[in-house]
Amino acid sequence: MSLIENLQWRYATKKMDPTKAVTQEKVEQILEAIRLTASSSGLQPYEVLVITNKAIREKIKAIAWDQTQIVDSSHLLVFAAWDTYTADRINQSFDMTEKIRNFKSEAGDIYRQKLLSGYTSRDAETNYTHAAKQAYIGLGTALIAAAYEQVDSTPMEGFDPVALDEILNLKEKGLRSVVMLPLGYRKADEDWLINLKKVRRPKENFITWIE
Amino acid sequence: MSLIENLQWRYATKKMDPTKAVTQEKVEQILEAIRLTASSSGLQPYEVLVITNKAIREKIKAIAWDQTQIVDSSHLLVFAAWDTYTADRINQSFDMTEKIRNFKSEAGDIYRQKLLSGYTSRDAETNYTHAAKQAYIGLGTALIAAAYEQVDSTPMEGFDPVALDEILNLKEKGLRSVVMLPLGYRKADEDWLINLKKVRRPKENFITWIE
Repeated sequence: MSLIENLQWRYATKKMDPTKAVTQEKVEQILEAIRLTASSSGLQPYEVLVITNKAIREKIKAIAWDQTQIVDSSHLLVFAAWDTYTADRINQSFDMTEKIRNFKSEAGDIYRQKLLSGYTSRDAETNYTHAAKQAYIGLGTALIAAAYEQVDSTPMEGFDPVALDEILNLKEKGLRSVVMLPLGYRKADEDWLINLKKVRRPKENFITWIE
Repeated sequence: MSLIENLQWRYATKKMDPTKAVTQEKVEQILEAIRLTASSSGLQPYEVLVITNKAIREKIKAIAWDQTQIVDSSHLLVFAAWDTYTADRINQSFDMTEKIRNFKSEAGDIYRQKLLSGYTSRDAETNYTHAAKQAYIGLGTALIAAAYEQVDSTPMEGFDPVALDEILNLKEKGLRSVVMLPLGYRKADEDWLINLKKVRRPKENFITWIE
């Protein structure tokens, strides 16, 4: 299927089949796509948690409007962004880049210093918001990667982020939950959305050409 | 190429060839991918501006660190998010959905009222930030769609957003600029990044399995 066909095929699956599991290989491909996509200055300021543990997913369901996909999926992805940018985190990224490329430049040093002074002087909330936006690039990538593997998924913002951070001990890791994505397979006969038409704003209201 | 190969092929192109233009057909495919991707509650709370006008792109370059891809690309995409959620915008989306699906439900009405009361009572900045995150899903989609079409692109946050809003008259449209994406073709012999290795955080530092 083409990319456009994959995007037409996918939808926010409302009912997943708890008897069907996504293979490890497919999950790894989806995670690899997330890992490879772009982020601001290449910092990748977020992590992805892959939760298969049923008891933990039951706890998460309880703080997420009881959405059944959280437990009926086989894998629950949680995108968790850095709670702030620190000098350590920025330096680690630049150090890794220099090491892998075996390449150090004055321009690179100037850029590193620009980020160090700009980011570490901003408040944590501004930095978290910036990091969370990068996680949404990952989410957009994961949606496509799942469809590419013919795996269903449901992007979810509807949960109590503070409670989720507690369940997953994210605070002590310097992370805050952003968005979730259960991966699984649709249970067609119990999904109210499956046969409804995909609705999108018409091109002329969404795109403006300035020529 | 597979999705993973497309993600490996793409990179934030640093020098584009001003003599090469992306075809209208390819740009339309990239825009269609953005239009089709997911957004919170399906509101698609952003728009995409496609700027080919050279004079306007010169003005934008001047408030964006003089990044040459802004004028050397053939098409400059600007993602601009709703400055806030309003009752009108939310109702328009729900009305359109009911009309296209020819389907009205009590659950749909309850959900509409939940968004109306929840979103219109929040401050504009919170709403803009939420809308901007959805635009990042679009950005993540556009990067992949461009690579799928073998088109180069460069995601850009480095610009003065207030100045960009003025150049594009976004305020009067109730929009605020979020991120830019020039589309064009790499000029290999002048791009310092082209031959450097792609650097990503190793899997074990980026992904956590909770089993």
